Amino acid sequence: MPPIVGVIGGGQLARMMIPPAIELGIELRVLAENAGESAAMAVTQLGSPRSIEDVLRFARGVDVITFDHEHVPQEVLAALIEAGVRVNPGPGALLYAQDKLLMRQKLSELGLPVPDWATVQSAADLEAFLAAHGGRAVVKTPRGGYDGKGVRVIGEAGEVADWFDAGEPLLAEELVSFRRELSQLAARRPSGEVALWPVVESIQLDGVCAEVIAPAPEASQKLIDMAAGIATAIAVELGVTGVLAVELFETTDDRLLVNELAMRPHNSGHWSIDGSATSQFEQHLRAVLDLPLGPTTARDAWSVMVNVLGGTTEDRYPTALAGQPGVKYHFYGKQPRPGRKVGHVTAGGDDLETVVLAARSAAAPFN
Amino acid sequence: MPPIVGVIGGGQLARMMIPPAIELGIELRVLAENAGESAAMAVTQLGSPRSIEDVLRFARGVDVITFDHEHVPQEVLAALIEAGVRVNPGPGALLYAQDKLLMRQKLSELGLPVPDWATVQSAADLEAFLAAHGGRAVVKTPRGGYDGKGVRVIGEAGEVADWFDAGEPLLAEELVSFRRELSQLAARRPSGEVALWPVVESIQLDGVCAEVIAPAPEASQKLIDMAAGIATAIAVELGVTGVLAVELFETTDDRLLVNELAMRPHNSGHWSIDGSATSQFEQHLRAVLDLPLGPTTARDAWSVMVNVLGGTTEDRYPTALAGQPGVKYHFYGKQPRPGRKVGHVTAGGDDLETVVLAARSAAAPFN
Repeated sequence: MPPIVGVIGGGQLARMMIPPAIELGIELRVLAENAGESAAMAVTQLGSPRSIEDVLRFARGVDVITFDHEHVPQEVLAALIEAGVRVNPGPGALLYAQDKLLMRQKLSELGLPVPDWATVQSAADLEAFLAAHGGRAVVKTPRGGYDGKGVRVIGEAGEVADWFDAGEPLLAEELVSFRRELSQLAARRPSGEVALWPVVESIQLDGVCAEVIAPAPEASQKLIDMAAGIATAIAVELGVTGVLAVELFETTDDRLLVNELAMRPHNSGHWSIDGSATSQFEQHLRAVLDLPLGPTTARDAWSVMVNVLGGTTEDRYPTALAGQPGVKYHFYGKQPRPGRKVGHVTAGGDDLETVVLAARSAAAPFN
Repeated sequence: MPPIVGVIGGGQLARMMIPPAIELGIELRVLAENAGESAAMAVTQLGSPRSIEDVLRFARGVDVITFDHEHVPQEVLAALIEAGVRVNPGPGALLYAQDKLLMRQKLSELGLPVPDWATVQSAADLEAFLAAHGGRAVVKTPRGGYDGKGVRVIGEAGEVADWFDAGEPLLAEELVSFRRELSQLAARRPSGEVALWPVVESIQLDGVCAEVIAPAPEASQKLIDMAAGIATAIAVELGVTGVLAVELFETTDDRLLVNELAMRPHNSGHWSIDGSATSQFEQHLRAVLDLPLGPTTARDAWSVMVNVLGGTTEDRYPTALAGQPGVKYHFYGKQPRPGRKVGHVTAGGDDLETVVLAARSAAAPFN
């Protein structure tokens, strides 16, 4: 009997777990909200991740439950645990990927480096924070944001009046003066083993990841060690199981600050499918099943991933493949829509400039 | 709309087409005879590959039909062509992978090197062939054999009396004195492009492929060129589309003779999943869709694939993964049975001896 992994959510992350599941002989089952989602091939049940009944029914007979996204409410997770289902990452860890206020609190308690932050309950709170931080701040809704949604850079409290109207506390953060954004990916299995990929540079456009360069160019050993130390501490202290992505700011004064956390495979790790001995998707499956982790050795000196945002049409495929035959193409089976992540490409090689050019040229026909 | 590839047959070859289909955004549909076969995740219809009705229904709406095995009768293929369905490889090529007598005839006509052979209709014919070839011969049923089935090495005609009783002509071949067995994999797309992987050594046990070493050790440039030339000639002259495997004998007097042909991904190419820039499964999908072929550059100096034959139990998995974390494991979702191919492992690296040892150690716990 092969082990059975149940994934809540049918998006591209669940889809990209299909190849390693097929290879490792793992039975993958997916709970999706709608027919025709990215992971359709592995969908065994349609239902809501917010329905205890749907999720309990889905979990029957699986060896472990894991996630395509963070949007499974704690009460649903509690019901799974109550029913004796193994859940990786567990509710106690996942909480910090679901709620940015709790995450900031926890990381501060652990002494990990984060931007200045405060919980703001009112316009007056926020004005005070602004006054103390040069009149500018980043304000975030604690829950439900992704790809730049739920995040605003503001100069006065009125710019988030609609959010205050909803009655929930908000997270205010200093506007960090950063040189670039990095991401440190890690995987941890329940019995303790941790594996790290090289820290990467992530280039964002309008709050959405556009490109990733692995490893991060011109990273000093000190920076590499700091990134690894931060991700390991978070994985261990929060008891994360599966893949953990730690998005980091490299500040202009050479510090690293934690920006966001994700406890699942992450866009900044897509390069690992083609560029690493073990991809983040294979590693996630190994980790949530508490199997030995695979090596994270890079296959090339440089790997560059470029997202395909927006359009893709079949008729451009032959041209793109012919133009950049060595690039690996990944499409998510999603309907094209401006700005939507519908795929990515990864190039690898010895010369960074050549590799960047190859990846961008391969993605260009689809963007 | 993504392109749709329909695969007839639900075995491990169809299963291993799932990962590249997921990656390239190709919709894969599989026609399987039974529920629970290896490619179950992609199965969209249960039915018989020998039923014109089942196959025509399955082909509705697909862009191209291809195969997991050779056992689709010519009349079914003719009905597909008649209905305007693209079929790759086409019936005219597939014929030579289905019928070993026709294959021998065709290759002889093309002047390609084959063992001495004859069509034998009776015990008297066979005794004459034996007398002319030192009293020993290989006798094959022209159709339906695989993994050593339908093949007997004999010293007298009585040993295949049961086959003669069936009333069909048989293929008699000289018992070739060979140094080793090689396999040359190629892919050809309908518009003509041909791609070749390096020629590999295939080690058989009891007529079943046990190990593959890529590239074939100590192969001279002359041998490499001969293997490439033979496979290219067969692909072009027979109009093969998709992956073609040419199994070869390297004789003790330094010739290459064609043993068998397969017009689909082949066991001797499984190493390419982990060891080549483009795997045989991705290349097959590209080729049958007439998309540009990918590069076949090797990722490592040496790749060694070892089949897992027989048993696999979940409880040995953690030990194997921990013992050989760098090896890539592949399981086919099949019930273990003595001698049955239920998976394979692939190791890669710079030192052949180390790589062979890693692959064998990884497979050993499951055999």
